[in-house]
Amino acid sequence: MTDLRIADCRITPIAFYDPPLLNNGGCHQPFALRSVIEVETEDGVIGLGESYGTRSLIDAVAALAPDLRGMAVTDLNGLWARARTRVQGGMPGYTGDERLLPRVVSAVEVAMWDALGKATGQRVVDLLGGQVRETVPFSAYLFYKFAGHAGQPADDWGEVLSPERLVDEARRFIETHGFRAIKLKAGILPPEEEVAGLEALRAAFPEAPLRIDPNGGWHVHTALDLLPRLEGLVEYLEDPTVGIDGNAVIQARTDVPLATNMYVVAQSHLPPNMAQDAFRVILSDHHYWGGLKASRDLAEICRIWGLGLSMHSNSHLGISLAAMTHLAAATPNLTYDCDTHYPWQVDEVVEGGRFEFRDGSLSVPEGPGLGVTLDRDALARLHQNYLDCGYTHRDDESEMQKHQPGWRFQRPRY
Amino acid sequence: MTDLRIADCRITPIAFYDPPLLNNGGCHQPFALRSVIEVETEDGVIGLGESYGTRSLIDAVAALAPDLRGMAVTDLNGLWARARTRVQGGMPGYTGDERLLPRVVSAVEVAMWDALGKATGQRVVDLLGGQVRETVPFSAYLFYKFAGHAGQPADDWGEVLSPERLVDEARRFIETHGFRAIKLKAGILPPEEEVAGLEALRAAFPEAPLRIDPNGGWHVHTALDLLPRLEGLVEYLEDPTVGIDGNAVIQARTDVPLATNMYVVAQSHLPPNMAQDAFRVILSDHHYWGGLKASRDLAEICRIWGLGLSMHSNSHLGISLAAMTHLAAATPNLTYDCDTHYPWQVDEVVEGGRFEFRDGSLSVPEGPGLGVTLDRDALARLHQNYLDCGYTHRDDESEMQKHQPGWRFQRPRY
Ligand SMILES: [Mg+2]
Ligand SMILES: [Mg+2]
Repeated sequence: MTDLRIADCRITPIAFYDPPLLNNGGCHQPFALRSVIEVETEDGVIGLGESYGTRSLIDAVAALAPDLRGMAVTDLNGLWARARTRVQGGMPGYTGDERLLPRVVSAVEVAMWDALGKATGQRVVDLLGGQVRETVPFSAYLFYKFAGHAGQPADDWGEVLSPERLVDEARRFIETHGFRAIKLKAGILPPEEEVAGLEALRAAFPEAPLRIDPNGGWHVHTALDLLPRLEGLVEYLEDPTVGIDGNAVIQARTDVPLATNMYVVAQSHLPPNMAQDAFRVILSDHHYWGGLKASRDLAEICRIWGLGLSMHSNSHLGISLAAMTHLAAATPNLTYDCDTHYPWQVDEVVEGGRFEFRDGSLSVPEGPGLGVTLDRDALARLHQNYLDCGYTHRDDESEMQKHQPGWRFQRPRY
Repeated sequence: MTDLRIADCRITPIAFYDPPLLNNGGCHQPFALRSVIEVETEDGVIGLGESYGTRSLIDAVAALAPDLRGMAVTDLNGLWARARTRVQGGMPGYTGDERLLPRVVSAVEVAMWDALGKATGQRVVDLLGGQVRETVPFSAYLFYKFAGHAGQPADDWGEVLSPERLVDEARRFIETHGFRAIKLKAGILPPEEEVAGLEALRAAFPEAPLRIDPNGGWHVHTALDLLPRLEGLVEYLEDPTVGIDGNAVIQARTDVPLATNMYVVAQSHLPPNMAQDAFRVILSDHHYWGGLKASRDLAEICRIWGLGLSMHSNSHLGISLAAMTHLAAATPNLTYDCDTHYPWQVDEVVEGGRFEFRDGSLSVPEGPGLGVTLDRDALARLHQNYLDCGYTHRDDESEMQKHQPGWRFQRPRY
C-alpha cells in the first residue's frame, strides 16, 4: 500500500517581475514575492503548493516543516493542530486579516492535496468532491498603472490613468484572453474619475459584467453619493469602505450586492457579517482561508446563507492558478467569474510554461493531483530573483513614494 | 490505476428486534426498519452504508441507483446532482424535517466513502481529515418503557415508568458499557415526573452529565416553569418545545444550552437558528444531514458560530455505528458524548458480531474504509424479518394505541 506519510516539507521563496499597478495601498513593486512549497511523501511523491513570499510566512512554514514528518497527507486535522502550536503572530504587508495561521496551513495543505492526488492517481478536483463545470471563467482584472517602474522605461502597457486608456487596457485583455467580466481596481484616483472609467468601459463593452474595487478607499458618504451611478452599472461593489460595520450601512441602502476580500477574510468574520448583512458576496481565496478544504467549507456556508461567491487573487503563478481552477471546478455555487492577476505576470514556475485562457476560461489541468509539475530551472532562477531583489515583504506604499514623494497610505482616502 | 467508477448500487431493507421504548411520538414497534446499501465499483470493491428502512427511502435509493453507474465514488457533487433530479417528496414516520433528498444522498454517500477507503487502503476517518481522538465516547440512552410489547411477555429490562426503575436501567447500562453521560428520553410522562426521574439519576450518579429530551413535548411555559429544577442539573436541554421560534424564547431565559435534533435538521435551518439564538448545541446525524461530508461541514459551522456539537441516533446496527465512530473521531469540536440506541439492539449485520463499548467508548474500527464487512447470512435473515413484519414505515402512534387505546400523538403534550 502507498505510504502517504510526509518525509519532507520544503519552502522556496521566489520573486518575479510585476508591473507598476496602482491600488489604494500604493504601487506594485518591480518584483512580486511568492513561495513554492513541496511536500514529499515516504514514497517520494512530491506535492506542490504556492503561497505568499512574505518573510514571516516563509519562516513559519520552515519552522513547521519538521513537525510534519510522519504525518499522513490526508491528515488536515493534524496539520491544523501542529500549525496551531507552532505559528505565532501576524503577517505584515497584506490587506485584510493579518493572521498567519490559516496562511501557513493553506501553503502546506494544497501541497498535501496534490501529493494525495499524485499518490492515488486522483485529480484534486475529484478529491474535492467532483468536477461540476468543464471550464472555470476568470475576469479581466484592470488596474490603473504608471508607464514604468520608477527610474525605468515604460513597459508595453504604458500609462493607464484615464478612461480612454482603461478601455484600451480592457480591449487588449479581452482580445488576448477572451474574458467576459471586467473588474476595475479602484481607490486610487478621485472616485468620480474611477466611476467615469467604469462608464467608459460600459460604453465600450455593453455586455460585460462590471465590478469596481476601491479596497475600502471610500468613506461611507462617498459610496452612498455614488450609488445612483453604480446601480445598474456593476454586478457587485467590492469593499467600498472600511469594515463590516461601515459596509453594512452601504448595503442597507442598495440592492447592488457588496463583495469583499478584505473584511470577511477569516471564519470568525462570518457570524458578524451574517448578523449585519454587510457583504452579500464573498471573494474566497484558498491562500488565506486555510486551504482548499476550508475554501470548500466557505462555499457551503455561502450557499446555506444565500451569499454569492467568487474568487480573489494576488500576483501569482501557475501552481496557485491550477489550485484555484481545481477548487472552482469543484464548487457548485461559484456565482461570479474568478479574479486573477495572472495575465499581468510573464514568468512561470511549472513545466510547460504559462497557462492559456480560452474564452476567458481555463480547463482543469489533466493528470493526477493539481496536474502541474515543477520546472526546477525556473524555480532556481526565480529564487535567485528573490535573493537579488532583497525584499522581505510587499510594500506598495514605499514604492508609490518613489513616483509621488510624500504620498501616504490612507484608508478611506476619499 | 484503481477504477473508482460505480458499477452497481443496491439497497436491502432489513428489520430487527426493538424493545417497547416510549417517546413523545408513542412506542417503538417490535421491529425497527433499516436498510443496507452496497456501492460496488468496477473493480469489485464494495462500500457499505446503513440508513432508514422507510419505504419512500428504499424506493428513492433504488430509483437513483441506475443513474450512479459510471460515476466515481469521489464524486459527491455528482451524487447530489443526480439525487436532485431523481428524488421527489418527503419521508413519513420520522420527526423533524421530512425532506427525503439529504437522506437519500446520505445513504449512498457513506457507502461511497467506504468504497473509496477500501479501494485506496485508507480508513474513512483519515479521508475525513484525520483522527483527532483515540476513542469516541457515547452516552447511556435511557427510555421509559413497557414491560413487553403488546400481547407479548415482558423482556428482560421489564417495565420502566418510575424514577427507581430508571435508576436501575441506568445502572445496568453503565455497568455493562461504562457510559459516563446519561440521556433521558422524555415527553411521555407528566414533566414533573420526568424531572423527578432526572433528580433520582443525579442522586444515584452524582458525577454523570445528564440530559433530557422531551422531543418538543412541552409548552414554552412548562419548560420555563421547570428551568429552576433543570439549571445545574443538565448539561443541555434537548428540544423542550416546538420550533426554532418557541425554543428561542426558552433559550433567552436560561444559560443551560438548548440542543436539537428536531428543528435544526437541514442546512436551511441554520441561518434562522443563528439569527434567533434558539439552539446552542446541534445533535448532528449523518443519516439526515446529507452524509459524512455534510456532517463535517455542519461541525465546521458549529465551530465557527460557537455552537456545541453532539450526535443524534435512531435504532441502528453496526454499519451506522462504524460510520458515526469514524465521523466523530475526525471531528475536533465534538463537545458532548454521542447518543446511540445501539445497546438497545441485539442483532447485527456486520461480520464479527456486535461492537463492544469500553468505558462507554468505541475505538475506530481497524482496516480500510469503515472497517466493517457485511455478514451476508445475517443480511438475509434480517431481510426476511423485514418481509415477515410487513411494516413499510415507523409508526409509534399506532403501536402505543395497542397498549393504551385512544392514545393520540400530541406535540406539545404538556
Ligand atoms: Mg478586493
Ligand atoms: Mg432528540
